[in-house]
Amino acid sequence: MSFKSAVLLVIFLQSFAIMTLASDPDPVRDFCIAGAASAINSLQCKNSSTVTVEDFVFSGIKLPGNFSETGLSSKPVNVNVFPGLNTLGMSFVRADFEIGGVNAPHFHPRATEVAFVLEGKIYSGFVDTDNKIFAKVLEKGEVMVFPRGLVHFQMNVGDTTATILGSFNSQNPGLQRIPNAVFGSGIKEELLEKAFGLSSNEIAKLRWKFSPHELS
Amino acid sequence: MSFKSAVLLVIFLQSFAIMTLASDPDPVRDFCIAGAASAINSLQCKNSSTVTVEDFVFSGIKLPGNFSETGLSSKPVNVNVFPGLNTLGMSFVRADFEIGGVNAPHFHPRATEVAFVLEGKIYSGFVDTDNKIFAKVLEKGEVMVFPRGLVHFQMNVGDTTATILGSFNSQNPGLQRIPNAVFGSGIKEELLEKAFGLSSNEIAKLRWKFSPHELS
Amino acid sequence: MSFKSAVLLVIFLQSFAIMTLASDPDPVRDFCIAGAASAINSLQCKNSSTVTVEDFVFSGIKLPGNFSETGLSSKPVNVNVFPGLNTLGMSFVRADFEIGGVNAPHFHPRATEVAFVLEGKIYSGFVDTDNKIFAKVLEKGEVMVFPRGLVHFQMNVGDTTATILGSFNSQNPGLQRIPNAVFGSGIKEELLEKAFGLSSNEIAKLRWKFSPHELS
Amino acid sequence: MSFKSAVLLVIFLQSFAIMTLASDPDPVRDFCIAGAASAINSLQCKNSSTVTVEDFVFSGIKLPGNFSETGLSSKPVNVNVFPGLNTLGMSFVRADFEIGGVNAPHFHPRATEVAFVLEGKIYSGFVDTDNKIFAKVLEKGEVMVFPRGLVHFQMNVGDTTATILGSFNSQNPGLQRIPNAVFGSGIKEELLEKAFGLSSNEIAKLRWKFSPHELS
Amino acid sequence: MSFKSAVLLVIFLQSFAIMTLASDPDPVRDFCIAGAASAINSLQCKNSSTVTVEDFVFSGIKLPGNFSETGLSSKPVNVNVFPGLNTLGMSFVRADFEIGGVNAPHFHPRATEVAFVLEGKIYSGFVDTDNKIFAKVLEKGEVMVFPRGLVHFQMNVGDTTATILGSFNSQNPGLQRIPNAVFGSGIKEELLEKAFGLSSNEIAKLRWKFSPHELS
Amino acid sequence: MSFKSAVLLVIFLQSFAIMTLASDPDPVRDFCIAGAASAINSLQCKNSSTVTVEDFVFSGIKLPGNFSETGLSSKPVNVNVFPGLNTLGMSFVRADFEIGGVNAPHFHPRATEVAFVLEGKIYSGFVDTDNKIFAKVLEKGEVMVFPRGLVHFQMNVGDTTATILGSFNSQNPGLQRIPNAVFGSGIKEELLEKAFGLSSNEIAKLRWKFSPHELS
Repeated sequence: MSFKSAVLLVIFLQSFAIMTLASDPDPVRDFCIAGAASAINSLQCKNSSTVTVEDFVFSGIKLPGNFSETGLSSKPVNVNVFPGLNTLGMSFVRADFEIGGVNAPHFHPRATEVAFVLEGKIYSGFVDTDNKIFAKVLEKGEVMVFPRGLVHFQMNVGDTTATILGSFNSQNPGLQRIPNAVFGSGIKEELLEKAFGLSSNEIAKLRWKFSPHELS
Repeated sequence: MSFKSAVLLVIFLQSFAIMTLASDPDPVRDFCIAGAASAINSLQCKNSSTVTVEDFVFSGIKLPGNFSETGLSSKPVNVNVFPGLNTLGMSFVRADFEIGGVNAPHFHPRATEVAFVLEGKIYSGFVDTDNKIFAKVLEKGEVMVFPRGLVHFQMNVGDTTATILGSFNSQNPGLQRIPNAVFGSGIKEELLEKAFGLSSNEIAKLRWKFSPHELS
Repeated sequence: MSFKSAVLLVIFLQSFAIMTLASDPDPVRDFCIAGAASAINSLQCKNSSTVTVEDFVFSGIKLPGNFSETGLSSKPVNVNVFPGLNTLGMSFVRADFEIGGVNAPHFHPRATEVAFVLEGKIYSGFVDTDNKIFAKVLEKGEVMVFPRGLVHFQMNVGDTTATILGSFNSQNPGLQRIPNAVFGSGIKEELLEKAFGLSSNEIAKLRWKFSPHELS
Repeated sequence: MSFKSAVLLVIFLQSFAIMTLASDPDPVRDFCIAGAASAINSLQCKNSSTVTVEDFVFSGIKLPGNFSETGLSSKPVNVNVFPGLNTLGMSFVRADFEIGGVNAPHFHPRATEVAFVLEGKIYSGFVDTDNKIFAKVLEKGEVMVFPRGLVHFQMNVGDTTATILGSFNSQNPGLQRIPNAVFGSGIKEELLEKAFGLSSNEIAKLRWKFSPHELS
Repeated sequence: MSFKSAVLLVIFLQSFAIMTLASDPDPVRDFCIAGAASAINSLQCKNSSTVTVEDFVFSGIKLPGNFSETGLSSKPVNVNVFPGLNTLGMSFVRADFEIGGVNAPHFHPRATEVAFVLEGKIYSGFVDTDNKIFAKVLEKGEVMVFPRGLVHFQMNVGDTTATILGSFNSQNPGLQRIPNAVFGSGIKEELLEKAFGLSSNEIAKLRWKFSPHELS
Repeated sequence: MSFKSAVLLVIFLQSFAIMTLASDPDPVRDFCIAGAASAINSLQCKNSSTVTVEDFVFSGIKLPGNFSETGLSSKPVNVNVFPGLNTLGMSFVRADFEIGGVNAPHFHPRATEVAFVLEGKIYSGFVDTDNKIFAKVLEKGEVMVFPRGLVHFQMNVGDTTATILGSFNSQNPGLQRIPNAVFGSGIKEELLEKAFGLSSNEIAKLRWKFSPHELS
């Protein structure tokens, strides 16, 4: 085989970058039901003799909750809400969308998400670290995966309400909604002006909109 | 505080065993689409310039598949079927049950499962390493978690077909169905007789039933 | 190089599927001796100034224990028995077999096992998730590895007693013996009948045999 | 001890939430120098007999690079730039700031960052998942930690240039700058309008500003 | 409860430092037999259709090997020697000692070790990061654990040969023998003089003794 | 392509051993500030409502500390000193060297280290598990990586004082200095004599030098 052939071959093989990976670590017990929610630190285990099947079953997402200003109702179910998830490395969420409803750009610092469309038509996508977008309209029964930590978003583009069931590979994936984290947390005004190339007035408007006082 | 009080306190505190945990490890890239399924080793990444949104969307579980002898249709979607899951630490499954249909006792060697009831009434449970059972009938919209590696099972006890959506925190959780793994794999007959306290005839019947030739 | 050559080459290379892997995570301290066994939660560390060499030495498997009905004596040594293992990611077991003694099909939800034959001749094997069996007779001094979470089994096929030393890469690997987990835990009878294709009578017999009342 | 005392005690103890944790996983070799950067897949190891000390030394951050429009020069050094980091779980960055220079709100999907101030006065902070901000002005010689995956930012508030050295606990932490990821990636206009409460005009201006064509 | 009582209680509770932990991560397949040892990169998997039970059995430590100058015969069995261990997170070693034989101070950078005494009386111990020693004479049948990465050592103090079986929670734990790594690797002489407070002559003698030319 | 070509190709490809990897695991919360240092177990989290930005900032390494006998001042900043690092998987160190100052051969059992030269000229290196040395003189602004758990060392070979900033991918990497761990911990004299091939007198001198009484 000539040198040229070898080079061609290497180029050919390069079209498959060798994988990196996600290993999946273990709990060190069968389970560890987190202690009673708010009153007691949720990271302690319930006495195993008092554990029942109810500790492993969650019944709180049969129905959607209230809708936000953007037409979204989101019920995240992590270890703080469902103590049976403790140490098991998973959690989930139910999201309902009004017609035209939007789940603003956000990300989960500690998990990949797998999203199933239960009802409706959802424009859904994420952005990778090269700022490349991967988005399309999902139909009922389709599934999309959002890689760990990347910004993603959804919008109901059908003419009925829509529902998504999301799963995470962390018991507590975390959530940062971009508008709120950036404009509603109190980051210095000059910094935001320079970062977004907006005027003092424009930033002030955004900060006012997403600041907590807005909620009252 | 008296010594007796201290003892009582320790007993009180012991009702909360301090947690162990499930840490959630990371990929080392945004994503790594596995190379084309069977032809090419699925553990190499697709050239990133050819990756599109279709690589992150799965459309193959809109409908149930064929039903088995026990009334189950199971469509597992792991990295071998959906290459976009590669390195992301998650996978999922759609399971449909005929009336009375059964998902035989089985376990996943490498993952916790979170199961959502999409339709129907499902008797669902698992067994822990003390042989304690946690089982109940789940209604539509309820969710149950099966801790990593523990034997679990399901049966449609309603009067309509039923459907479950399961999620796993591994890109390839694996599956061992007890009847097949134990009686259908060719384990020495004397060993099985002694282990189950069954006669040579009884074991032979079970081995015949679950051996692969059964499928032809 | 022609296209045909390239194809041949890729086929040739495919005979080596690129590895996945087992990373090995760390403790965050030198050690953490679990608090006094049953009385105190074993997941707290002993005050390090009171730790001695005895905390790292285990002397309880010099001799076999009592033999079970199937001719097995098993002494698992995990963090609950040997608190010095806490956070160190390992544990072990001594198993002795009478002539013809059997270690029933079982698995460890949270660990790989490496088994050393100290004495005797042991038929030993495991089943993978394709139901393929890997089994053979091991001689004294031979070592077999059982991959994490897969069903495995052993039987003394020599004419003397036999002994095995097993090691695990978890401080608490867990153990599910198939006959006990499936027939001795109280799984609904109809489910087991359908799953194993056995009659109501046959299942009742197995359930009676492996239920806890059996032990009294 | 009275019930009231017990309650007080529990409240007292609750002021210390029991830790979760960051375990630190291992490579499975001493090292694995990634193959020559762009030409060869960076996830293969260099033949160990040709590895020299130069493979473990990086000399490219002695000086700052060019400054961006916001007055920032950032030189990230991950496994793609410094192949010796492969499998070792770390990488780093040099960031220089002009007077008033800004590092726009951003996050790293796969790493915690520890930032050392080498020169100057830097307003520096992050936002947690409750939208609470933690920010202050750091002096030369001070160090701040940004927890994994959380939005953080910096601004040179002194009257000289400033320099930071950041370290990450991933060989490839990734980076998403909020303005670019959200407004420069092509997310549907209506979605952004609704998410940020901005007019079609305002969104168009932001999209134009952060779109790649801007760079030409 | 008085303030004093609370203080006493906290002191009492402090005697149990809350645990850190060792999570145990997973392979993402049942197994992955490493390709044929030296000829082919051992980190690729063998085609699974050609895998047999022999791939999971190791027969090479039935007998000790040759003894070194210090009276030690050590046969480490890691993934390079036993490809079936690949991705399974474990390996092992057989060590035989002549009377008075010594296993010099050494450590394994990537694993905890559990050591079983098969024969003889072994003075065995380790040093923690506070330079505290934990050492004692072990009898046949006793087991000692050496926490990950800490310096440990052994000496046959009985009047017969002695044998140890060690297990590791890494497929490739690595080994650094202190005398060889420090004096036999070519570290600058002045550095060693200052570090050990020895004369140029003394260091030269040690370097000569442990340098590779010694072996010829 | 002939068989010979295929063989050549495989040899060519072997020059790139397929990677192993370092996955980077996650915390399960945004952060968890360790409780007040010595008084309270540092592995419990501070109540989050009392956490301030000061918990994430460390100001104690603006200046070097006192110099040791070998001309080294080392200020390690791990979770015990800086509780804000808890669960975040990172820590760091400032090391200052007098002219000719030496950082004796040592290793960190639980972390890789990335070392930045802030000032001066430092002979710096490590030894791998084949006893191969990788060492060179680093200039100001250069960076060297020491793979996890391997013996490494440094010496100021310039004519000014020198300073290094090291980062670790563990909140508590641990440190074993070879001279102290081996000669200052009380390992049995005969063992050390045999291991190092030194006389009883020589070992006694080293033991005396590095024993704790030395410090008084």
